[in-house]
Amino acid sequence: MPTMKSILFVFTLLFSGMALRAAASAPPAMANHPIAIVMHGGAGTILRKDMTPQMEARYRASLKTALQTGYAVLKKGGTSLDAVQAAIQVLEDSPLFNAGKGAVFTHDGKNQMDAAIMDGKSMRAGAVADVQHIRNPIALARLVMEKTPHVLLVADGAEKFAQSQGMQLMPAGYFYTKPRWQELQRALQAEKRGRKSLALEENYPGTTAQGFGTVGAVAVDRYGNIAAGTSTGGLTNKLDGRVGDSPIPGDGTYANNLTCGASGTGTGEYYMELNLTKDVSDLMEYRGWSLKRAVDYEIHDKLVKFGGENSGGLIALDRQGEIVTAFNTAGMYRGYIDTHGNLVVKIFRDE
Amino acid sequence: MPTMKSILFVFTLLFSGMALRAAASAPPAMANHPIAIVMHGGAGTILRKDMTPQMEARYRASLKTALQTGYAVLKKGGTSLDAVQAAIQVLEDSPLFNAGKGAVFTHDGKNQMDAAIMDGKSMRAGAVADVQHIRNPIALARLVMEKTPHVLLVADGAEKFAQSQGMQLMPAGYFYTKPRWQELQRALQAEKRGRKSLALEENYPGTTAQGFGTVGAVAVDRYGNIAAGTSTGGLTNKLDGRVGDSPIPGDGTYANNLTCGASGTGTGEYYMELNLTKDVSDLMEYRGWSLKRAVDYEIHDKLVKFGGENSGGLIALDRQGEIVTAFNTAGMYRGYIDTHGNLVVKIFRDE
Repeated sequence: MPTMKSILFVFTLLFSGMALRAAASAPPAMANHPIAIVMHGGAGTILRKDMTPQMEARYRASLKTALQTGYAVLKKGGTSLDAVQAAIQVLEDSPLFNAGKGAVFTHDGKNQMDAAIMDGKSMRAGAVADVQHIRNPIALARLVMEKTPHVLLVADGAEKFAQSQGMQLMPAGYFYTKPRWQELQRALQAEKRGRKSLALEENYPGTTAQGFGTVGAVAVDRYGNIAAGTSTGGLTNKLDGRVGDSPIPGDGTYANNLTCGASGTGTGEYYMELNLTKDVSDLMEYRGWSLKRAVDYEIHDKLVKFGGENSGGLIALDRQGEIVTAFNTAGMYRGYIDTHGNLVVKIFRDE
Repeated sequence: MPTMKSILFVFTLLFSGMALRAAASAPPAMANHPIAIVMHGGAGTILRKDMTPQMEARYRASLKTALQTGYAVLKKGGTSLDAVQAAIQVLEDSPLFNAGKGAVFTHDGKNQMDAAIMDGKSMRAGAVADVQHIRNPIALARLVMEKTPHVLLVADGAEKFAQSQGMQLMPAGYFYTKPRWQELQRALQAEKRGRKSLALEENYPGTTAQGFGTVGAVAVDRYGNIAAGTSTGGLTNKLDGRVGDSPIPGDGTYANNLTCGASGTGTGEYYMELNLTKDVSDLMEYRGWSLKRAVDYEIHDKLVKFGGENSGGLIALDRQGEIVTAFNTAGMYRGYIDTHGNLVVKIFRDE
C-alpha cells in the first residue's frame, strides 16, 4: 500500500539508521517497576500416560532454564524485549520444542518457521514467516522491528535480509530431529490410508506428546514496559507456505502497555480469524475487563464457540505483572517467575 | 502451532472436501436485504495538478466498471464474497492500479503481491502474500479460504497451491508496466543520491499520482452477509519479502456481520501494529460506536497519533449498507453503489 510516506520509510532504513524505530529499545533511566515473565512451550493433548518421567523432567528443566534466562535479563535492568528474546532463544535451541531446532515438518518435508516480537511501549512489532535456515527466528524478527521500516518479512526476502544483517544461514539439516520426522511420516501414512481426524490422535498416542511445542514469552521490565514474542515451526504436515498466527501482531503475539502482553499456542487459523490477542486487549481497554476475565473468556468461551474446543492456549501478563495462563487442551507446557520471584513450571491440566 | 486438531485439519482438506469451510459460501434462500458495495483504488497525494483529464477519466471509468461488476453480482442474488472478488479482479486486471497487472516493484525489481478476502458470516478468511505469478491474487485468496484449512499461504507454497487448483502461473513480465518501473528507478536513483523523506515527493511530482493504488472492496448481499477483500503490490522499493496489512485479517481486510466490513489502504505497517480494521469493529461491538464514528476516529485520530498523518484511508460498510469512506491523505480513489442504487465515484479530497 504505497503512499510516498511509505516509500520513504525505505530511505529512512537506508540512510538514517532507523532512528524512528530504534528509539523503542532504548531503556529509560533505572526504575523499580515489579518484574515478571511468563512462557509457554505449546498446548495440546499432553497426558501423563504418554510421557516418561525422563521426558517430563527434560521439558520442565528446559522451561526452567528459559524462564531463568529471561528473568536474569530483567533482574539486571534489561528490557522486556531483551528478556523475551533471550528466553525464547533457549527453547528455539532445544530440540524438544517446535521452534528453531526441532521444528515440525511441512507436507513436503521442510522446516518453515515463523516468529514475532512486539514492544508494548511503542507498539512496534517485527516478524518473519516461512524462513527455513534461521537458527533463531525470534532474533530475526527483532531485527525486522529495529532495522527495517517493515513489520513482516517472509521466505527468501526474510533470509536475504538476515544475511544483510550478518546472520549466518543454517543448513536445513540443522533443524532435523527424528521424532518430528517420524511424526510427519505417520501423518503421511495416515493420509494414504484415508485415516481422518480425531482417529489419528487415538491411534498414535505416542505422537501426541510431540505434536506441538510452539514457544512464547511475555515479560514486564523494571521500566514498566511489556514485550511479547512467539516462535514456531507451525503444524506438522501443513501445506508449504502456510503462515499461522504466531508472526501476526494481534493474533498469536501482542504487546500494549495500556493493557497486556500475550502469546498464543494452538490452531493458529482460529487465532487469526478472531484476532485473539488483540481481542483480549480490546476487552480490557474498551470494556474494562480484567486480564483474567478477558483471557478466560477468549479461551473457554469465544474460541470454543468458534469451533476451537481443545484447540489451544494463551499466556499473558499486564503491566502490574499479574500473570494469567489458560488453555482448553489437556495440557500446556508453561511456567513463570512472578513479581515475588517465585518460579513455577507446569505441564498437565491437574497441576 | 501444532495441536493434533490442527494436523487433522489437513486431513479434512485432503479427504472430506473441506465441508467445514465450504459451508461459508453457500447462500441461504433468496432474501431481500438491501445491497451495497464500496471500493477504493488507493489513497495518497492525489492532486488535480498532477493528473491529466485523460488520466482522471480512465481512473473514474475503471472504478465505475469495477463497482458495476460487483453490483451486478449482488443484484442477481450472488453472494458478497462473489461480488467483492469480481469487483477486485477488474482492478487487478487494470494496469492503473497497484494490484495484479500494474503492481509496483520491490527494491530488487520484482512484483510481489498480497491479497485477502474475508466472509463476515462465518468470519473465515483466506489470504496470500509474496506471490509473483498470480494474475488475480484475490481469486487465490478465495481458494485458500475455501479449499484449505489455512488462512494465509505465502511465496512458493502459495504458488504451488495455485497450480494444484489448476490456476495458471503468469510470466513475471505480465505484471510489468512502464510507469511502475520508472517509479522504482526514480526511487533507486534518489536512494543513491542520499535523498531522503518528503523531499522525494516534492521533487518528483510526476510520481505521486502513480505511487499507490492498492484496491479493496466491501459489499453486503441480499442475505445480509458482509464480505471484504483487498489486493495490492505493496510499496514501491519495499524490501523483498515484505508483507503488509492487506492480506492480514483485522489489519487491512476485515468482515464481521455483527459490526462491519472494511478494507484499508495506506502505510500498511501502521495498520498492522494497530490492527486497524479489527479496532474499528471492536469500537462498534465493545463501545457501541457507530461505523462512521469508529472509522473517523481511526483515520483522523488514532492513526495520526501513531505517526500516520497523511498515511492512508479506509472504506467500510455495515450490515444495513451504510457506507463510510475516510482518508487523511490528499485523495483516495473511491466509489460506491449505495442501497438506493446510486453510483458515486470520487478521487480528490474536495469532492
